Amino acid sequence: MRLRHKPWAQDLLNQHPEYVVQNAEQYKGNWQERFGNHHPIYIEVGSGKGRFITEMAKTYPDINFIAIELQTSVIVSILEIQLDIHLPNLQILHTNGSHLNQYFDQADISRIYLNFSDPWPKKKHTKRRLTSPAFLEQYQAIITANGEIHFKTDNQGLFEYSLASMSQYGMILKEVWLDLHQSDFEGNIETEYEMKFAEKGHRIYRLEAYFPNN
Amino acid sequence: MRLRHKPWAQDLLNQHPEYVVQNAEQYKGNWQERFGNHHPIYIEVGSGKGRFITEMAKTYPDINFIAIELQTSVIVSILEIQLDIHLPNLQILHTNGSHLNQYFDQADISRIYLNFSDPWPKKKHTKRRLTSPAFLEQYQAIITANGEIHFKTDNQGLFEYSLASMSQYGMILKEVWLDLHQSDFEGNIETEYEMKFAEKGHRIYRLEAYFPNN
Ligand SMILES: C[S@@+](CC[C@H](N)C(=O)[O-])C[C@H]1O[C@@H](n2cnc3c(N)ncnc32)[C@H](O)[C@@H]1O
Ligand SMILES: C[S@@+](CC[C@H](N)C(=O)[O-])C[C@H]1O[C@@H](n2cnc3c(N)ncnc32)[C@H](O)[C@@H]1O
Repeated sequence: MRLRHKPWAQDLLNQHPEYVVQNAEQYKGNWQERFGNHHPIYIEVGSGKGRFITEMAKTYPDINFIAIELQTSVIVSILEIQLDIHLPNLQILHTNGSHLNQYFDQADISRIYLNFSDPWPKKKHTKRRLTSPAFLEQYQAIITANGEIHFKTDNQGLFEYSLASMSQYGMILKEVWLDLHQSDFEGNIETEYEMKFAEKGHRIYRLEAYFPNN
Repeated sequence: MRLRHKPWAQDLLNQHPEYVVQNAEQYKGNWQERFGNHHPIYIEVGSGKGRFITEMAKTYPDINFIAIELQTSVIVSILEIQLDIHLPNLQILHTNGSHLNQYFDQADISRIYLNFSDPWPKKKHTKRRLTSPAFLEQYQAIITANGEIHFKTDNQGLFEYSLASMSQYGMILKEVWLDLHQSDFEGNIETEYEMKFAEKGHRIYRLEAYFPNN
Protein backbone atom coordinates (compact mmCIF):
# COMPACT_ATOMS: atom_id res chain seq x y z
CA MET A 1 0.00 0.00 0.00
CA ARG A 2 1.63 3.29 -1.07
CA LEU A 3 1.52 5.72 1.81
CA ARG A 4 0.79 9.37 1.76
CA HIS A 5 1.31 10.88 5.16
CA LYS A 6 -2.03 12.23 6.35
CA PRO A 7 -1.52 14.05 9.66
CA TRP A 8 -5.26 14.77 9.91
CA ALA A 9 -6.27 11.13 9.51
CA GLN A 10 -6.14 10.08 13.17
CA ASP A 11 -8.17 13.17 14.13
CA LEU A 12 -10.88 12.36 11.62
CA LEU A 13 -11.03 8.75 12.85
CA ASN A 14 -11.37 10.02 16.44
CA GLN A 15 -14.20 12.35 15.46
CA HIS A 16 -16.42 9.52 14.22
CA PRO A 17 -16.89 6.98 17.00
CA GLU A 18 -20.26 6.10 15.43
CA TYR A 19 -18.41 4.43 12.54
CA VAL A 20 -14.92 3.81 13.95
CA VAL A 21 -15.16 1.38 16.86
CA GLN A 22 -13.45 2.56 20.05
CA ASN A 23 -12.56 0.03 22.77
CA ALA A 24 -13.67 -2.88 20.66
CA GLU A 25 -13.12 -5.22 23.64
CA GLN A 26 -16.42 -4.05 25.10
CA TYR A 27 -18.37 -5.64 22.20
CA LYS A 28 -16.77 -9.07 22.52
CA GLY A 29 -19.62 -11.60 22.45
CA ASN A 30 -22.01 -8.71 22.05
CA TRP A 31 -21.67 -7.14 18.61
CA GLN A 32 -25.44 -7.25 18.07
CA GLU A 33 -25.62 -4.31 20.43
CA ARG A 34 -23.25 -2.30 18.27
CA PHE A 35 -25.24 -2.98 15.09
CA GLY A 36 -28.65 -2.97 16.74
CA ASN A 37 -29.68 -6.26 15.12
CA HIS A 38 -28.81 -9.96 15.00
CA HIS A 39 -27.63 -10.19 11.40
CA PRO A 40 -24.51 -12.27 10.69
CA ILE A 41 -21.23 -10.39 10.82
CA TYR A 42 -18.59 -10.67 8.09
CA ILE A 43 -15.16 -9.13 8.58
CA GLU A 44 -12.39 -8.27 6.16
CA VAL A 45 -8.82 -8.28 7.46
CA GLY A 46 -6.61 -5.76 5.65
CA SER A 47 -9.38 -3.79 3.95
CA GLY A 48 -7.07 -1.20 2.41
CA LYS A 49 -9.06 1.77 1.13
CA GLY A 50 -12.31 -0.17 1.43
CA ARG A 51 -13.71 -0.52 -2.08
CA PHE A 52 -14.57 -4.19 -1.53
CA ILE A 53 -16.19 -3.94 1.88
CA THR A 54 -18.19 -0.79 1.15
CA GLU A 55 -19.57 -2.34 -2.06
CA MET A 56 -20.33 -5.57 -0.19
CA ALA A 57 -22.14 -3.65 2.54
CA LYS A 58 -24.21 -1.84 -0.08
CA THR A 59 -25.01 -5.09 -1.88
CA TYR A 60 -25.89 -7.14 1.22
CA PRO A 61 -27.84 -4.91 3.63
CA ASP A 62 -28.83 -7.89 5.78
CA ILE A 63 -25.22 -8.69 6.61
CA ASN A 64 -23.15 -6.60 9.00
CA PHE A 65 -19.60 -5.84 7.91
CA ILE A 66 -16.52 -4.82 9.84
CA ALA A 67 -13.49 -3.47 7.96
CA ILE A 68 -10.25 -4.20 9.81
CA GLU A 69 -7.14 -2.31 8.75
CA LEU A 70 -3.87 -1.48 10.41
CA GLN A 71 -2.76 1.71 8.73
CA THR A 72 -4.19 5.06 9.74
CA SER A 73 -3.58 6.74 6.40
CA VAL A 74 -5.33 3.89 4.57
CA ILE A 75 -8.29 3.14 6.83
CA VAL A 76 -9.27 6.80 6.80
CA SER A 77 -10.32 6.34 3.16
CA ILE A 78 -12.93 3.82 4.29
CA LEU A 79 -14.26 6.37 6.76
CA GLU A 80 -14.40 9.00 4.03
CA ILE A 81 -16.53 6.69 1.87
CA GLN A 82 -18.75 5.86 4.84
CA LEU A 83 -19.23 9.58 5.59
CA ASP A 84 -20.69 9.85 2.09
CA ILE A 85 -22.93 6.82 2.13
CA HIS A 86 -23.75 6.25 5.84
CA LEU A 87 -24.31 2.51 5.69
CA PRO A 88 -25.88 1.22 8.92
CA ASN A 89 -24.30 -2.22 8.38
CA LEU A 90 -20.65 -1.11 8.14
CA GLN A 91 -18.24 -0.54 10.99
CA ILE A 92 -14.54 0.24 10.91
CA LEU A 93 -11.98 -1.31 13.25
CA HIS A 94 -8.53 0.25 13.30
CA THR A 95 -6.30 -2.55 14.53
CA ASN A 96 -3.94 -5.38 13.76
CA GLY A 97 -5.64 -8.61 12.65
CA SER A 98 -3.18 -10.62 14.74
CA HIS A 99 -5.18 -10.51 17.99
CA LEU A 100 -8.79 -10.72 16.83
CA ASN A 101 -9.78 -12.86 19.82
CA GLN A 102 -9.45 -9.76 22.02
CA TYR A 103 -12.44 -8.27 20.21
CA PHE A 104 -14.43 -11.28 19.10
CA ASP A 105 -15.75 -14.32 20.91
CA GLN A 106 -16.20 -17.78 19.42
CA ALA A 107 -18.96 -17.61 16.78
CA ASP A 108 -19.19 -13.78 16.78
CA ILE A 109 -18.09 -13.83 13.13
CA SER A 110 -19.77 -15.72 10.27
CA ARG A 111 -17.28 -15.10 7.48
CA ILE A 112 -13.78 -13.70 7.02
CA TYR A 113 -12.51 -12.06 3.83
CA LEU A 114 -8.84 -11.78 3.00
CA ASN A 115 -8.14 -9.81 -0.17
CA PHE A 116 -4.71 -9.32 -1.72
CA SER A 117 -3.02 -9.73 1.63
CA ASP A 118 0.61 -8.69 1.76
CA PRO A 119 2.56 -11.63 0.26
CA TRP A 120 5.64 -11.58 2.53
CA PRO A 121 7.57 -13.73 0.05
CA LYS A 122 10.65 -14.30 2.20
CA LYS A 123 10.63 -17.51 4.18
CA LYS A 124 11.71 -15.71 7.36
CA HIS A 125 8.53 -13.58 7.13
CA THR A 126 6.17 -16.56 6.82
CA LYS A 127 4.59 -15.73 10.19
CA ARG A 128 3.39 -12.36 8.90
CA ARG A 129 1.27 -13.93 6.15
CA LEU A 130 -2.43 -13.67 7.00
CA THR A 131 -2.86 -17.36 6.14
CA SER A 132 -0.09 -18.66 8.42
CA PRO A 133 -1.05 -20.96 11.30
CA ALA A 134 -1.16 -18.32 14.07
CA PHE A 135 -3.62 -16.23 12.03
CA LEU A 136 -5.72 -19.28 11.15
CA GLU A 137 -5.90 -20.05 14.86
CA GLN A 138 -7.29 -16.54 15.48
CA TYR A 139 -9.87 -16.98 12.75
CA GLN A 140 -10.90 -20.36 14.11
CA ALA A 141 -11.32 -18.85 17.58
CA ILE A 142 -13.90 -16.31 16.41
CA ILE A 143 -15.81 -17.93 13.54
CA THR A 144 -19.13 -19.79 13.59
CA ALA A 145 -19.56 -23.48 12.78
CA ASN A 146 -19.26 -23.78 8.98
CA GLY A 147 -18.18 -20.15 8.77
CA GLU A 148 -16.02 -19.62 5.70
CA ILE A 149 -12.82 -17.81 4.82
CA HIS A 150 -12.84 -16.28 1.33
CA PHE A 151 -9.41 -15.38 0.04
CA LYS A 152 -8.38 -13.65 -3.19
CA THR A 153 -4.91 -12.76 -4.43
CA ASP A 154 -2.89 -12.31 -7.58
CA ASN A 155 0.22 -13.57 -5.80
CA GLN A 156 1.06 -17.09 -6.94
CA GLY A 157 3.47 -17.84 -4.09
CA LEU A 158 1.04 -16.66 -1.43
CA PHE A 159 -1.77 -18.69 -2.97
CA GLU A 160 0.34 -21.86 -3.17
CA TYR A 161 1.38 -21.32 0.44
CA SER A 162 -2.18 -20.67 1.59
CA LEU A 163 -3.65 -23.80 0.00
CA ALA A 164 -1.12 -25.97 1.83
CA SER A 165 -1.19 -23.95 5.06
CA MET A 166 -4.97 -24.05 5.37
CA SER A 167 -5.09 -27.74 4.50
CA GLN A 168 -2.37 -28.62 7.00
CA TYR A 169 -4.11 -26.57 9.68
CA GLY A 170 -7.15 -28.79 9.20
CA MET A 171 -9.32 -26.53 7.06
CA ILE A 172 -11.36 -27.93 4.18
CA LEU A 173 -11.22 -26.32 0.74
CA LYS A 174 -14.75 -25.81 -0.46
CA GLU A 175 -13.85 -24.41 -3.87
CA VAL A 176 -10.80 -23.07 -5.71
CA TRP A 177 -10.53 -20.72 -8.69
CA LEU A 178 -7.20 -20.52 -10.54
CA ASP A 179 -8.29 -17.75 -12.90
CA LEU A 180 -11.22 -15.94 -11.34
CA HIS A 181 -11.72 -13.35 -14.06
CA GLN A 182 -11.95 -16.03 -16.76
CA SER A 183 -14.36 -18.16 -14.71
CA ASP A 184 -18.12 -18.17 -14.47
CA PHE A 185 -18.03 -16.85 -10.89
CA GLU A 186 -20.86 -14.38 -10.50
CA GLY A 187 -21.10 -11.25 -8.42
CA ASN A 188 -17.38 -10.71 -7.91
CA ILE A 189 -16.68 -7.36 -6.28
CA GLU A 190 -13.22 -6.13 -7.18
CA THR A 191 -10.83 -4.64 -4.65
CA GLU A 192 -8.50 -1.76 -5.48
CA TYR A 193 -5.53 -4.08 -5.82
CA GLU A 194 -7.58 -6.49 -7.92
CA MET A 195 -8.49 -3.75 -10.41
CA LYS A 196 -4.88 -2.68 -10.65
CA PHE A 197 -3.39 -6.16 -11.04
CA ALA A 198 -6.09 -7.55 -13.32
CA GLU A 199 -5.46 -4.61 -15.63
CA LYS A 200 -1.77 -5.55 -15.74
CA GLY A 201 -2.83 -9.03 -16.88
CA HIS A 202 -2.20 -10.86 -13.60
CA ARG A 203 -4.34 -13.91 -12.93
CA ILE A 204 -6.58 -13.65 -9.90
CA TYR A 205 -6.73 -16.70 -7.59
CA ARG A 206 -9.56 -17.34 -5.16
CA LEU A 207 -10.53 -19.93 -2.58
CA GLU A 208 -13.29 -20.65 -0.08
CA ALA A 209 -12.44 -22.77 2.96
CA TYR A 210 -13.85 -23.66 6.37
CA PHE A 211 -12.92 -25.28 9.68
CA PRO A 212 -14.70 -28.66 9.78
CA ASN A 213 -14.61 -29.05 13.55
CA ASN A 214 -15.94 -25.66 14.57
CA MET B 1 -4.67 -40.51 -26.07
CA ARG B 2 -4.80 -40.90 -29.85
CA LEU B 3 -5.28 -44.53 -30.74
CA ARG B 4 -3.68 -46.49 -33.46
CA HIS B 5 -5.15 -49.94 -33.69
CA LYS B 6 -2.43 -52.46 -32.93
CA PRO B 7 -3.81 -55.96 -33.47
CA TRP B 8 -0.49 -57.50 -32.38
CA ALA B 9 -0.40 -55.61 -29.06
CA GLN B 10 -2.35 -58.09 -26.94
CA ASP B 11 -0.21 -60.94 -28.25
CA LEU B 12 3.01 -59.16 -27.32
CA LEU B 13 1.65 -58.42 -23.83
CA ASN B 14 0.73 -62.13 -23.44
CA GLN B 15 4.21 -63.20 -24.52
CA HIS B 16 5.91 -61.35 -21.64
CA PRO B 17 4.44 -62.48 -18.33
CA GLU B 18 7.81 -61.63 -16.70
CA TYR B 19 6.99 -57.92 -17.17
CA VAL B 20 3.23 -57.86 -17.66
CA VAL B 21 1.56 -59.11 -14.50
CA GLN B 22 -1.00 -61.90 -15.05
CA ASN B 23 -3.60 -62.67 -12.37
CA ALA B 24 -2.50 -59.74 -10.25
CA GLU B 25 -4.86 -60.90 -7.46
CA GLN B 26 -2.32 -63.56 -6.47
CA TYR B 27 0.18 -60.87 -5.39
CA LYS B 28 -2.22 -59.00 -3.12
CA GLY B 29 -0.39 -58.39 0.17
CA ASN B 30 2.61 -60.15 -1.31
CA TRP B 31 4.19 -58.01 -4.03
CA GLN B 32 7.66 -58.48 -2.50
CA GLU B 33 7.56 -61.96 -4.01
CA ARG B 34 6.97 -60.55 -7.47
CA PHE B 35 9.89 -58.10 -7.19
CA GLY B 36 12.13 -60.37 -5.14
CA ASN B 37 12.85 -57.65 -2.55
CA HIS B 38 11.17 -55.48 0.10
CA HIS B 39 11.64 -52.08 -1.52
CA PRO B 40 8.71 -49.64 -1.42
CA ILE B 41 6.30 -49.85 -4.35
CA TYR B 42 5.14 -46.77 -6.26
CA ILE B 43 2.36 -47.06 -8.83
CA GLU B 44 1.24 -44.76 -11.61
CA VAL B 45 -2.42 -44.89 -12.67
CA GLY B 46 -2.88 -44.06 -16.36
CA SER B 47 0.75 -44.39 -17.42
CA GLY B 48 0.11 -43.80 -21.11
CA LYS B 49 3.16 -44.76 -23.17
CA GLY B 50 5.31 -44.87 -20.06
CA ARG B 51 7.95 -42.17 -20.44
CA PHE B 52 7.49 -41.01 -16.83
CA ILE B 53 7.50 -44.38 -15.10
CA THR B 54 10.36 -45.86 -17.10
CA GLU B 55 12.53 -42.80 -16.40
CA MET B 56 11.54 -42.92 -12.72
CA ALA B 57 12.42 -46.61 -12.53
CA LYS B 58 15.82 -45.90 -14.09
CA THR B 59 16.44 -43.00 -11.72
CA TYR B 60 15.32 -44.76 -8.52
CA PRO B 61 16.56 -48.38 -8.65
CA ASP B 62 15.70 -48.91 -4.96
CA ILE B 63 12.01 -48.25 -5.56
CA ASN B 64 9.74 -50.74 -7.31
CA PHE B 65 7.36 -49.28 -9.87
CA ILE B 66 4.11 -50.59 -11.35
CA ALA B 67 2.66 -48.93 -14.45
CA ILE B 68 -1.13 -49.24 -14.58
CA GLU B 69 -2.86 -48.51 -17.86
CA LEU B 70 -6.17 -49.44 -19.37
CA GLN B 71 -5.56 -49.35 -23.09
CA THR B 72 -3.89 -52.24 -24.86
CA SER B 73 -2.55 -50.16 -27.73
CA VAL B 74 -0.98 -47.69 -25.29
CA ILE B 75 0.40 -49.94 -22.56
CA VAL B 76 2.21 -52.01 -25.18
CA SER B 77 4.56 -49.03 -25.66
CA ILE B 78 5.68 -49.40 -22.04
CA LEU B 79 6.45 -53.05 -22.66
CA GLU B 80 8.41 -52.15 -25.78
CA ILE B 81 10.57 -49.76 -23.74
CA GLN B 82 11.01 -52.38 -21.03
CA LEU B 83 12.07 -54.98 -23.61
CA ASP B 84 14.91 -52.60 -24.49
CA ILE B 85 16.03 -51.69 -20.97
CA HIS B 86 14.99 -54.69 -18.82
CA LEU B 87 14.56 -52.85 -15.54
CA PRO B 88 14.18 -55.29 -12.63
CA ASN B 89 12.15 -52.72 -10.66
CA LEU B 90 9.41 -52.12 -13.25
CA GLN B 91 6.23 -54.14 -13.72
CA ILE B 92 3.27 -53.48 -15.99
CA LEU B 93 -0.35 -53.98 -14.97
CA HIS B 94 -2.95 -53.90 -17.72
CA THR B 95 -6.13 -52.94 -15.92
CA ASN B 96 -8.58 -50.25 -14.86
CA GLY B 97 -7.48 -48.16 -11.86
CA SER B 98 -11.02 -48.24 -10.51
CA HIS B 99 -10.67 -51.50 -8.56
CA LEU B 100 -7.10 -51.38 -7.24
CA ASN B 101 -8.09 -53.04 -3.98
CA GLN B 102 -8.52 -56.32 -5.88
CA TYR B 103 -4.77 -56.35 -6.48
CA PHE B 104 -3.36 -54.46 -3.53
CA ASP B 105 -3.78 -54.77 0.20
CA GLN B 106 -3.68 -51.91 2.71
CA ALA B 107 -0.10 -50.56 2.78
CA ASP B 108 1.09 -52.52 -0.25
CA ILE B 109 1.69 -49.20 -2.01
CA SER B 110 3.88 -46.33 -0.78
CA ARG B 111 3.11 -43.69 -3.39
CA ILE B 112 0.65 -43.11 -6.23
CA TYR B 113 1.36 -40.97 -9.28
CA LEU B 114 -1.39 -39.46 -11.40
CA ASN B 115 -0.11 -37.65 -14.48
CA PHE B 116 -2.27 -35.72 -16.93
CA SER B 117 -5.28 -37.83 -16.10
CA ASP B 118 -8.21 -37.52 -18.48
CA PRO B 119 -10.01 -34.30 -17.44
CA TRP B 120 -13.64 -35.40 -17.98
CA PRO B 121 -14.80 -31.77 -17.92
CA LYS B 122 -18.54 -32.46 -18.01
CA LYS B 123 -20.22 -32.51 -14.64
CA LYS B 124 -22.04 -35.75 -15.43
CA HIS B 125 -18.63 -37.44 -15.90
CA THR B 126 -17.23 -36.32 -12.53
CA LYS B 127 -17.10 -39.92 -11.30
CA ARG B 128 -14.65 -40.84 -14.04
CA ARG B 129 -12.04 -38.35 -12.83
CA LEU B 130 -9.14 -40.14 -11.15
CA THR B 131 -9.36 -37.69 -8.22
CA SER B 132 -13.08 -38.21 -7.52
CA PRO B 133 -14.10 -39.70 -4.15
CA ALA B 134 -14.51 -43.34 -5.28
CA PHE B 135 -10.95 -43.32 -6.69
CA LEU B 136 -9.56 -41.61 -3.58
CA GLU B 137 -11.20 -44.35 -1.52
CA GLN B 138 -9.36 -46.97 -3.59
CA TYR B 139 -6.06 -45.17 -3.11
CA GLN B 140 -6.64 -44.87 0.63
CA ALA B 141 -7.38 -48.60 0.82
CA ILE B 142 -3.98 -49.58 -0.59
CA ILE B 143 -1.51 -46.89 0.53
CA THR B 144 0.86 -46.85 3.52
CA ALA B 145 0.60 -44.45 6.45
CA ASN B 146 1.91 -41.10 5.19
CA GLY B 147 2.02 -42.45 1.65
CA GLU B 148 1.61 -39.63 -0.85
CA ILE B 149 -0.30 -38.98 -4.04
CA HIS B 150 1.60 -36.87 -6.56
CA PHE B 151 -0.56 -35.36 -9.25
CA LYS B 152 0.39 -33.27 -12.30
CA THR B 153 -1.83 -31.81 -14.98
CA ASP B 154 -2.11 -28.89 -17.35
CA ASN B 155 -5.88 -28.93 -17.02
CA GLN B 156 -7.05 -26.00 -14.89
CA GLY B 157 -10.54 -27.35 -14.27
CA LEU B 158 -9.30 -30.77 -13.23
CA PHE B 159 -6.73 -29.21 -10.90
CA GLU B 160 -9.30 -26.92 -9.27
CA TYR B 161 -11.61 -29.90 -8.85
CA SER B 162 -8.86 -32.11 -7.44
CA LEU B 163 -7.73 -29.60 -4.79
CA ALA B 164 -11.27 -29.37 -3.43
CA SER B 165 -12.07 -33.06 -3.89
CA MET B 166 -8.97 -34.26 -2.07
CA SER B 167 -9.44 -31.73 0.71
CA GLN B 168 -13.10 -32.64 1.16
CA TYR B 169 -12.22 -36.32 1.20
CA GLY B 170 -9.95 -35.61 4.18
CA MET B 171 -6.57 -35.55 2.47
CA ILE B 172 -3.93 -33.00 3.45
CA LEU B 173 -2.16 -30.93 0.81
CA LYS B 174 1.56 -31.12 1.48
CA GLU B 175 2.60 -28.76 -1.30
CA VAL B 176 1.10 -27.12 -4.38
CA TRP B 177 2.77 -25.77 -7.54
CA LEU B 178 0.76 -23.48 -9.80
CA ASP B 179 3.44 -23.20 -12.51
CA LEU B 180 5.78 -26.15 -12.13
CA HIS B 181 8.06 -25.34 -15.05
CA GLN B 182 8.72 -21.82 -13.72
CA SER B 183 9.35 -23.06 -10.19
CA ASP B 184 12.49 -24.25 -8.45
CA PHE B 185 11.21 -27.83 -8.30
CA GLU B 186 14.14 -30.14 -8.98
CA GLY B 187 14.26 -33.50 -10.70
CA ASN B 188 10.97 -33.20 -12.56
CA ILE B 189 10.53 -36.05 -15.02
CA GLU B 190 8.26 -35.03 -17.87
CA THR B 191 5.51 -37.24 -19.20
CA GLU B 192 4.60 -37.39 -22.89
CA TYR B 193 1.58 -35.16 -22.38
CA GLU B 194 3.62 -32.77 -20.26
CA MET B 195 6.20 -32.30 -23.03
CA LYS B 196 3.46 -31.68 -25.56
CA PHE B 197 1.44 -29.24 -23.48
CA ALA B 198 4.38 -27.36 -22.00
CA GLU B 199 5.61 -26.76 -25.54
CA LYS B 200 2.22 -25.24 -26.38
CA GLY B 201 2.71 -22.83 -23.48
CA HIS B 202 0.30 -24.47 -21.04
CA ARG B 203 1.02 -24.05 -17.37
CA ILE B 204 1.73 -27.28 -15.51
CA TYR B 205 0.08 -27.69 -12.09
CA ARG B 206 1.31 -30.12 -9.46
CA LEU B 207 0.35 -31.21 -5.96
CA GLU B 208 1.46 -33.63 -3.28
CA ALA B 209 -1.14 -34.86 -0.78
CA TYR B 210 -1.62 -37.61 1.81
CA PHE B 211 -4.26 -39.28 3.94
CA PRO B 212 -3.66 -38.14 7.52
CA ASN B 213 -5.46 -41.03 9.21
CA ASN B 214 -3.87 -43.94 7.38
C1 LIG C 1 -1.84 -5.23 -0.35
S1 LIG C 1 -3.03 -4.33 0.57
C2 LIG C 1 -4.61 -4.85 -0.09
C3 LIG C 1 -5.71 -3.93 0.27
C4 LIG C 1 -7.12 -4.36 -0.19
N1 LIG C 1 -7.54 -5.56 0.51
C5 LIG C 1 -7.17 -4.57 -1.68
O1 LIG C 1 -7.31 -5.75 -2.10
O2 LIG C 1 -7.11 -3.60 -2.44
C6 LIG C 1 -2.93 -5.12 2.15
C7 LIG C 1 -3.54 -4.31 3.28
O3 LIG C 1 -3.57 -5.12 4.45
C8 LIG C 1 -3.20 -4.32 5.56
N2 LIG C 1 -2.68 -5.25 6.57
C9 LIG C 1 -1.55 -5.99 6.47
N3 LIG C 1 -1.37 -6.73 7.57
C10 LIG C 1 -2.41 -6.46 8.39
C11 LIG C 1 -2.78 -6.91 9.69
N4 LIG C 1 -1.99 -7.80 10.34
N5 LIG C 1 -3.91 -6.44 10.24
C12 LIG C 1 -4.68 -5.53 9.56
N6 LIG C 1 -4.37 -5.06 8.33
C13 LIG C 1 -3.25 -5.52 7.76
C14 LIG C 1 -2.19 -3.36 5.00
O4 LIG C 1 -2.08 -2.21 5.80
C15 LIG C 1 -2.78 -3.05 3.61
O5 LIG C 1 -3.67 -1.97 3.64
C1 LIG D 1 -4.23 -38.13 -21.02
S1 LIG D 1 -3.43 -39.65 -20.94
C2 LIG D 1 -1.92 -39.26 -20.05
C3 LIG D 1 -0.86 -40.30 -20.22
C4 LIG D 1 0.43 -40.07 -19.41
N1 LIG D 1 0.20 -40.17 -17.98
C5 LIG D 1 1.07 -38.76 -19.76
O1 LIG D 1 1.07 -37.86 -18.89
O2 LIG D 1 1.62 -38.59 -20.86
C6 LIG D 1 -4.39 -40.53 -19.74
C7 LIG D 1 -4.11 -42.02 -19.72
O3 LIG D 1 -4.81 -42.61 -18.62
C8 LIG D 1 -5.41 -43.81 -19.04
N2 LIG D 1 -6.56 -44.04 -18.13
C9 LIG D 1 -7.66 -43.30 -18.06
N3 LIG D 1 -8.50 -43.78 -17.11
C10 LIG D 1 -7.88 -44.88 -16.61
C11 LIG D 1 -8.25 -45.81 -15.60
N4 LIG D 1 -9.41 -45.71 -14.95
N5 LIG D 1 -7.37 -46.80 -15.31
C12 LIG D 1 -6.20 -46.92 -15.97
N6 LIG D 1 -5.80 -46.04 -16.92
C13 LIG D 1 -6.63 -45.04 -17.24
C14 LIG D 1 -5.80 -43.56 -20.48
O4 LIG D 1 -5.95 -44.78 -21.19
C15 LIG D 1 -4.63 -42.73 -20.97
O5 LIG D 1 -3.58 -43.55 -21.48
